[in-house]
Amino acid sequence: MRMYDIIMKKRNGGALSKEEIRFFIEGYTKGEIPDYQVSALMMAIYFQKMTERETYELTMAMAHSGEMLDLSSIHGRKVDKHSTGGVGDKTSLALTPMVAACGIPVAKMSGRGLGHTGGTIDKLESFPGFSTSLTTEQFIENVNKIGIAIMGQTADLAPADKKLYALRDVTATVDNMSLIASSIMSKKLAAGADAIVLDVKTGSGAFMKGREDAFALAEEMVKIGKNAGRRTIAVISDMDQPLGMAVGNALEVKEAIATLRGEGPKDFTELCMVLGSQMLMAGGKALSVEQARAALTKVIEDGSALRKLSEFVEAQGGDPTAVTDPSLLPKASMVVPVCADRDGFVGRIACEDVGICSLLLGGGRETKESKIDLSVGILLEKKKGDAVKKGDVLGYLHANDEQRLEAAKDKFLNAYAITDSRPETEPLIKGILQ
Amino acid sequence: MRMYDIIMKKRNGGALSKEEIRFFIEGYTKGEIPDYQVSALMMAIYFQKMTERETYELTMAMAHSGEMLDLSSIHGRKVDKHSTGGVGDKTSLALTPMVAACGIPVAKMSGRGLGHTGGTIDKLESFPGFSTSLTTEQFIENVNKIGIAIMGQTADLAPADKKLYALRDVTATVDNMSLIASSIMSKKLAAGADAIVLDVKTGSGAFMKGREDAFALAEEMVKIGKNAGRRTIAVISDMDQPLGMAVGNALEVKEAIATLRGEGPKDFTELCMVLGSQMLMAGGKALSVEQARAALTKVIEDGSALRKLSEFVEAQGGDPTAVTDPSLLPKASMVVPVCADRDGFVGRIACEDVGICSLLLGGGRETKESKIDLSVGILLEKKKGDAVKKGDVLGYLHANDEQRLEAAKDKFLNAYAITDSRPETEPLIKGILQ
Repeated sequence: MRMYDIIMKKRNGGALSKEEIRFFIEGYTKGEIPDYQVSALMMAIYFQKMTERETYELTMAMAHSGEMLDLSSIHGRKVDKHSTGGVGDKTSLALTPMVAACGIPVAKMSGRGLGHTGGTIDKLESFPGFSTSLTTEQFIENVNKIGIAIMGQTADLAPADKKLYALRDVTATVDNMSLIASSIMSKKLAAGADAIVLDVKTGSGAFMKGREDAFALAEEMVKIGKNAGRRTIAVISDMDQPLGMAVGNALEVKEAIATLRGEGPKDFTELCMVLGSQMLMAGGKALSVEQARAALTKVIEDGSALRKLSEFVEAQGGDPTAVTDPSLLPKASMVVPVCADRDGFVGRIACEDVGICSLLLGGGRETKESKIDLSVGILLEKKKGDAVKKGDVLGYLHANDEQRLEAAKDKFLNAYAITDSRPETEPLIKGILQ
Repeated sequence: MRMYDIIMKKRNGGALSKEEIRFFIEGYTKGEIPDYQVSALMMAIYFQKMTERETYELTMAMAHSGEMLDLSSIHGRKVDKHSTGGVGDKTSLALTPMVAACGIPVAKMSGRGLGHTGGTIDKLESFPGFSTSLTTEQFIENVNKIGIAIMGQTADLAPADKKLYALRDVTATVDNMSLIASSIMSKKLAAGADAIVLDVKTGSGAFMKGREDAFALAEEMVKIGKNAGRRTIAVISDMDQPLGMAVGNALEVKEAIATLRGEGPKDFTELCMVLGSQMLMAGGKALSVEQARAALTKVIEDGSALRKLSEFVEAQGGDPTAVTDPSLLPKASMVVPVCADRDGFVGRIACEDVGICSLLLGGGRETKESKIDLSVGILLEKKKGDAVKKGDVLGYLHANDEQRLEAAKDKFLNAYAITDSRPETEPLIKGILQ
């Protein structure tokens, strides 16, 4: 078999066989097939697409390119959750303690943030001492003991995907549904859960800006999961404005804690209920959405979800008193309001720009090497559809640096479009595929 | 400017600017832009094509990536000739002395053969002592003194093309008219001639098998030449069967010498007349095809073309007595006839297979490193349309090795399709574009 013939076949519109896909992924992972042949193939795939079967085979080949995590020693049905990322998306922080408190074992690998979206690990590090550097043994032991553990992605988890994504990123070959779906799903399959609930975001703050693209990606991923024999559900949710009111690491942790107390923002609480219901049903802990919502409501009302967060933070070296006293979390030195310059309604919030605003304040990473400031960020006061009077506070910027603050202020104010008429409201949940 | 954006623009169907094309070619030549980005761009170009303007700019950027040969110290209007290559294509050997004898200075860079097609330099090395290793100064001096010089392509002639072609060759991105045309024309433009006559072959032995593709390539190249201010003419000629009767290095030299004596095969002689006429008109040595043909006929009849070949061979270190006594050229130890196994007509000759037959005998290069046997090859006795009786000799294989001979015999016999009815004859010249 020759890589040249594989490129030629795809270029001419052919469907690659399982053997051809394995040959190329194995050869590329070992460094036997050069980048320049793989990037030509990626561009050919961009134009000629991949069939459902090819997409599945690519995903499996990448999943098997490194260690396949064996979670069989964890008791119960493991349900993983993955979000395609967005602004103010602190879902894992509240959702995992909620479902863990309902008896679903959560063994999760998370990532760090890059660009305008944050990462779960960064947020969790707001708890002084918290660490995600666990051995696989500690990871499994923690899940069995307290029902929840989160670790960073190991280098050997789907290494082919890591190498391939880095190449696609510099050769303009990211935008292909099969390649995006296989990249996400190869890691999820290698991470070993029995069932996977996907939160596919759509809107101005999401990777998939268009609704149709988001549904297409969701469909691709559900198909892969099913072909791989894992129960897979995709929830398509709104990211046309930030989720909840908090954007920024420690600020989002505070909002997640408030939510576990039953005092969270409506949209964020609802998303946790929807995703949590799917996780409970996939994990066999509820037979209907009604049953699942009741169980999730109960663990918030009786405080067991919040206690689960404390146990989890403590088990990974963090200070659990910050869960009961969030004032112990990192705090910025300046809190500055940004006000509306006219009367009207919030017609649109340029969601990605709010993420960039947090980045400008120092709360995100411009490159993989950037150091981030956990304390800074934004607390929104107004969201889409809210009526505003001139001078009303749209949001508070939490900052530690005057210069950064100035740049962020402009960005934030410009992200808000104040209109004369109230905009139509977008539903939070666009659809559920399974 | 970023290579990433250039790839993305072409991927999305945009036309690259002169600046973008220069940025990428200069960066690639210097090694600042990696292969993997360039191969992705090549694949995007394969799918999205290039406009006439882009193709021209790419050609110019590649031509200027190394030394632009300055032939201004050569007196007269320099006319270059280029063939896209074929089986038995010894045109340069007879044509250049013919036009040189008519007063056109020939300053030519040639290549070696690869695969089923031969190269002019290999053929010329059949003259004992002949060398194409000339300095640019010797090259120019020889042209001024005797009217003709041929040298190997220098490393610094269009180095971007060399690098790009090698990359395209292993990434299935060769087949694009703009890329093929710019590759040929960048070298021709850098080689410094005032006018260029292109011989674009079509048929089973050619790079461009299909007639339409050959015309398309011819058109692309003529456009580039015109945009670059060089008079450019393309002759589209038949390569559905070998040209002339001889295939193999020394055998082709003998046929070229016979042609210069007025004793050459009809098709080969005619092609030299057609290409020679275009060269004479482009070089201002004839006003019409009739005038040009008369001049070319004269230099054959009065022996001056043959003498020009002698002078040229001697000036480059070769033994000129082989021109008057071709029996001094390399000779194979075995000459074996291959006979028809039935009555009928030669309906078709699989031209590429005849080239491969010569390769099998040892007369061609399988890889760039192969050593070739100048003496071996094939002398055809029958060509397309000829009537044959069972037992008639179709051709003689000239060989030095029993094993190679056996493989070649089969290949040769199978290359001939003997049919019951006489096939329609194909015209030698399919068209002339300018």
